Amino acid sequence: MPSSGRPSGRAADALRSIDFQIDVNKYAEGSCLISFGDTRVLCTASIEQSVPGWLRNSGRGWVTAEYGMLPRATDTRTDREAARGKQSGRTQEIQRLVGRSLRAVTDLKGFGERQIRVDCDVLQADGGTRTAAITGSYVALHLAFEHMRRLGAVTRVPLLEPVAAISCGLYQGAPVLDLDYAEDSQAEADANFVITASGQLVEVQATAEKTAFRRQELDALLDLAEKGVGELVALQREVLGLSE
Amino acid sequence: MPSSGRPSGRAADALRSIDFQIDVNKYAEGSCLISFGDTRVLCTASIEQSVPGWLRNSGRGWVTAEYGMLPRATDTRTDREAARGKQSGRTQEIQRLVGRSLRAVTDLKGFGERQIRVDCDVLQADGGTRTAAITGSYVALHLAFEHMRRLGAVTRVPLLEPVAAISCGLYQGAPVLDLDYAEDSQAEADANFVITASGQLVEVQATAEKTAFRRQELDALLDLAEKGVGELVALQREVLGLSE
Amino acid sequence: MPSSGRPSGRAADALRSIDFQIDVNKYAEGSCLISFGDTRVLCTASIEQSVPGWLRNSGRGWVTAEYGMLPRATDTRTDREAARGKQSGRTQEIQRLVGRSLRAVTDLKGFGERQIRVDCDVLQADGGTRTAAITGSYVALHLAFEHMRRLGAVTRVPLLEPVAAISCGLYQGAPVLDLDYAEDSQAEADANFVITASGQLVEVQATAEKTAFRRQELDALLDLAEKGVGELVALQREVLGLSE
Amino acid sequence: MPSSGRPSGRAADALRSIDFQIDVNKYAEGSCLISFGDTRVLCTASIEQSVPGWLRNSGRGWVTAEYGMLPRATDTRTDREAARGKQSGRTQEIQRLVGRSLRAVTDLKGFGERQIRVDCDVLQADGGTRTAAITGSYVALHLAFEHMRRLGAVTRVPLLEPVAAISCGLYQGAPVLDLDYAEDSQAEADANFVITASGQLVEVQATAEKTAFRRQELDALLDLAEKGVGELVALQREVLGLSE
Amino acid sequence: MPSSGRPSGRAADALRSIDFQIDVNKYAEGSCLISFGDTRVLCTASIEQSVPGWLRNSGRGWVTAEYGMLPRATDTRTDREAARGKQSGRTQEIQRLVGRSLRAVTDLKGFGERQIRVDCDVLQADGGTRTAAITGSYVALHLAFEHMRRLGAVTRVPLLEPVAAISCGLYQGAPVLDLDYAEDSQAEADANFVITASGQLVEVQATAEKTAFRRQELDALLDLAEKGVGELVALQREVLGLSE
Amino acid sequence: MPSSGRPSGRAADALRSIDFQIDVNKYAEGSCLISFGDTRVLCTASIEQSVPGWLRNSGRGWVTAEYGMLPRATDTRTDREAARGKQSGRTQEIQRLVGRSLRAVTDLKGFGERQIRVDCDVLQADGGTRTAAITGSYVALHLAFEHMRRLGAVTRVPLLEPVAAISCGLYQGAPVLDLDYAEDSQAEADANFVITASGQLVEVQATAEKTAFRRQELDALLDLAEKGVGELVALQREVLGLSE
Repeated sequence: MPSSGRPSGRAADALRSIDFQIDVNKYAEGSCLISFGDTRVLCTASIEQSVPGWLRNSGRGWVTAEYGMLPRATDTRTDREAARGKQSGRTQEIQRLVGRSLRAVTDLKGFGERQIRVDCDVLQADGGTRTAAITGSYVALHLAFEHMRRLGAVTRVPLLEPVAAISCGLYQGAPVLDLDYAEDSQAEADANFVITASGQLVEVQATAEKTAFRRQELDALLDLAEKGVGELVALQREVLGLSE
Repeated sequence: MPSSGRPSGRAADALRSIDFQIDVNKYAEGSCLISFGDTRVLCTASIEQSVPGWLRNSGRGWVTAEYGMLPRATDTRTDREAARGKQSGRTQEIQRLVGRSLRAVTDLKGFGERQIRVDCDVLQADGGTRTAAITGSYVALHLAFEHMRRLGAVTRVPLLEPVAAISCGLYQGAPVLDLDYAEDSQAEADANFVITASGQLVEVQATAEKTAFRRQELDALLDLAEKGVGELVALQREVLGLSE
Repeated sequence: MPSSGRPSGRAADALRSIDFQIDVNKYAEGSCLISFGDTRVLCTASIEQSVPGWLRNSGRGWVTAEYGMLPRATDTRTDREAARGKQSGRTQEIQRLVGRSLRAVTDLKGFGERQIRVDCDVLQADGGTRTAAITGSYVALHLAFEHMRRLGAVTRVPLLEPVAAISCGLYQGAPVLDLDYAEDSQAEADANFVITASGQLVEVQATAEKTAFRRQELDALLDLAEKGVGELVALQREVLGLSE
Repeated sequence: MPSSGRPSGRAADALRSIDFQIDVNKYAEGSCLISFGDTRVLCTASIEQSVPGWLRNSGRGWVTAEYGMLPRATDTRTDREAARGKQSGRTQEIQRLVGRSLRAVTDLKGFGERQIRVDCDVLQADGGTRTAAITGSYVALHLAFEHMRRLGAVTRVPLLEPVAAISCGLYQGAPVLDLDYAEDSQAEADANFVITASGQLVEVQATAEKTAFRRQELDALLDLAEKGVGELVALQREVLGLSE
Repeated sequence: MPSSGRPSGRAADALRSIDFQIDVNKYAEGSCLISFGDTRVLCTASIEQSVPGWLRNSGRGWVTAEYGMLPRATDTRTDREAARGKQSGRTQEIQRLVGRSLRAVTDLKGFGERQIRVDCDVLQADGGTRTAAITGSYVALHLAFEHMRRLGAVTRVPLLEPVAAISCGLYQGAPVLDLDYAEDSQAEADANFVITASGQLVEVQATAEKTAFRRQELDALLDLAEKGVGELVALQREVLGLSE
Repeated sequence: MPSSGRPSGRAADALRSIDFQIDVNKYAEGSCLISFGDTRVLCTASIEQSVPGWLRNSGRGWVTAEYGMLPRATDTRTDREAARGKQSGRTQEIQRLVGRSLRAVTDLKGFGERQIRVDCDVLQADGGTRTAAITGSYVALHLAFEHMRRLGAVTRVPLLEPVAAISCGLYQGAPVLDLDYAEDSQAEADANFVITASGQLVEVQATAEKTAFRRQELDALLDLAEKGVGELVALQREVLGLSE
């Protein structure tokens, strides 16, 4: 595929440099610092020995996520949500998305009445923080379940298959993979895809930022996303030592 | 198309009964009470003679939306957000979606430095409140611009083309159009599509509620949505007295 | 009684056109959309199977009310209380008044340890929203108790007698009944009366808006209110199918 | 008037011991610590050299009030509103009432574009805090205007006449004046009257606490209130050194 | 010690006039209105018959404190924290300090699973409100424990020894005791010391307001504080009728 | 100095392993990731081109700080302050301390009317987070000023001298330097010292956690702190390339 004139010089279907550092937090049952280029998200998975009230005596567990950005994760400093006294609509939207994505590949009957809280904190943001958060959270969640297995709390990791996420967009008329901030802020359309290792769709969120887009364009973005998620899942498996 | 075993007995590709009542509020520059079956949303468009600070002296206007539900819009009473002291993540997600959808078909340079605030208040909810809100809001927004035109504040309605929204889902394995609550709460996957009169996509939000879904299934849902939006746009044009 | 120069041309002792639409909400145990002229308030009564903590094991029930206004219920759009993060003093004052008024005619020992929550949401405001809310809420509450009786949860409707409310005021020096917004905003004094079918007083709230008023003027307002409430109670009985 | 069996042994028409201590705060332009028996409210009036935005360039001033209770002003400690993060409906209702009552006797055109903020803080509560607050606030406000006159900021105190407030109620079937907490918590009906020195009514708030009341009973309460306010105004004039 | 040029003319090591009025609140189990010159703080101690959740079944009690300032306690009126909807960082810092100081001299195992809440409300502020609050709170707390002893709830007052607090500072280069506001606002450094009757340190908080200070200066401030606390403890013992 | 029986085996006067990583954030004008053993705090300094309102037209700048902890920075997960909707008293206390400490060594007249916001976010907490935050913030602030100097916005770095902070405490009766969490949670007393390179004191905060302490003990803690800060300042100078 020829160069698409991307600011980074990347090919249209090229991911940024992806990096997973695991076990970066001495307290969390699972943790992963994920980088998509200059985007860096610290994901921790914390096990709690009880579930929300509406799940009590159901025999089921729960997985939930929270998301935050450090004030200077961004080019211009953003006010601290704790100081403003509330989480923005964007923050809530993202943490709901991360939670749903993880639950879609988790066997909620497979780890007792426990809750896993995944925290995704963006240390540096250069586009794609929510997709990095999902991709890294899966790794942190897997590590937390392995921790439980080592302790004998579960006999197997109750995850159905890996899940990862990637953004795609229409940039100067062409579909491109894994937008960085320079592209994201100029893109005509922006889409986030959450896809499992077996290629099933978990979430599709496509938004016309400037002008509406055609169905064929959505198809082209989905083609790119399938390629990108394939590569991300291979990296997740590698860092977790999982065979395919 | 044969019956798909839907609780309502509707065909898989059948909308519920759709109704638009316009000019239902004596103060609002544009208003529309829209019904999708038993879902009823009151949409009002209010013109303000100034824009948010970041648009001052830009020559551009802005369109924004807010969303709310009356406490007993739902089967079981929901606590009032004003009493709880904050809007839920769901509310914020929806009002951001409605605002983006309207802006996608609005010529923001075409009505001066004014802001239109669209309020979508759900009087009764039976599934599909966000898609009803978008579809009704377009009508209220159009009426508000017509009001400005009659006053001479604009020379033409600064809307590029109609926009409408519809939900689709996988219910008992089959793709169906315009989910009511009975279906929505049981669906395997749920998708909302915002599509313009010319068939361009503005927003696609597809979510696996129970299990991940295949790409062909997303395609089938999109086929249904295109059909449904076509019917909704025809009704919008009819109530607004617009030729195609 | 001669014309009093009211903007609406009404006689000094004339109510606006009053309308009750009942059972307008498919979920609420009781509901009523009441109109006092252009003022429209949607009242729903919701039954909950438990009481606040301080009433547990008392054998008594509770009735409480909440009040809200849609943002464009008013001539100029009002900010949404849920977005501002708190209810105004005015809102809290009104919902406390509605709750007290309903409890004054309810036999709290007559329906077990249940709570009825009445929601009064103003769809359009043209003066007198709190008195319309009380008058319509009584109807919604009665319908909810009838619903309980049909289900066998109570053997009789535990309401002592109907209650209704009306505003009166001194407008251009003369006492007038049922102020609309044009009058209310210019009145020298403004009073709200909550009165039972048998003519007992439940609440009297009279306020000098511009200048203090004389005791005889309060008497004249009370005379008007008694007449107005008499008419409202007759309409409540009619819509509820109650004999006098 | 014979004893009415009141817990305090007071005659039905007897006020509690009333005391005004003025200039109790070294910073406030006007201050008054008022006692109605064991009820003690500290009232301060603070002059600000600007008005709220909606009054700018109107040539008019404004008077507003705030109300608070110390946590242990009450028999059982009440949570601090600052800690709970919001003022209760009751607090807001009272501070709106105090503000309206003071404005009713103030010539808002008589002291330039200034705002007087009156703070009423209940140090100890034994019934009647809102009426003590109004009665003491008038004194603090008068003192603040005298302060302005001494500085030459106004040529005369812009107050039309004194205003005071008192509660009355139906206690064991009989009308009584100036309820203390023991009576207030048992009263069948409770009324607060704000009345000027010349006997004009500013606010009437009568509430059926247990059962609705008759019009003649309201009249009897008003008779008592007129007597009580007469005595309070005489004391206000004495402490302020005003002739009648 | 010669005059240090203090605005008040006090000697460098002289306290302001100190006054304790006890039992000033008819409801509180212990109460004390303390004055350090023009600084006046009302301290009440309220006994609750249960402890916070984390102490249940521990056999231990708890002592906690809250702090507030009336809006016109200060030269320029300060906004009410209840109206702003949150307590400032300063308020929280002070109330945590008061609570720790009291707990340091309380035998938490000596009064069962009860909680004492101490409220410190500043009626007038002229510097040193936090040290006056601690010194007065000790008295209120002692009185509350005596109240419990009279009722037989404890056999002895579970306080190890008196505690008091005082501020010192570097003013125009010289160490001075018990800063009033005129000094405090100009001081180069400001320190608060919480010291027990036997001379043990409970809290030391020294802050460079303008320039950093030397270790010998800290020593000089501590010398002054020991002298001041000695005098305060003598006054506490006198008002409480305690022998040394 | 012999072993003091510390859990870590450190000598009583030994710091943990200290590490500074600078320029770890691509956007911040200055940044430093500081480690005191397992405590890790990310400090960023952000330059804003305007000052708070009260400093406008003063010719002076301002330095302020905010502090936060990631939810799983701690052994047991802590709720996110942004989700709870407010910052704790502890958080506010710390961020005020960091701001004061930095301002004490900053020439506020030396960088124009600009504000530097320093954010201290704890990635992992093992005791001493506030002292690490101050020590790392000084480095980030210095780097931000160097950035301004390179751009020509200032001619010299407007910092008077380095400042650093360290905690000390009484652990099992003995004074020890740089408490880790295992010690901190068991210490009899805990003190934080903020000291400049020239040995001047900026802040002293000593707290009796279990029992009050003697003046000689405070002296011993201060001896340790002076030694520790000396070592920290040497490391700050090294990483910043400053001569002594």
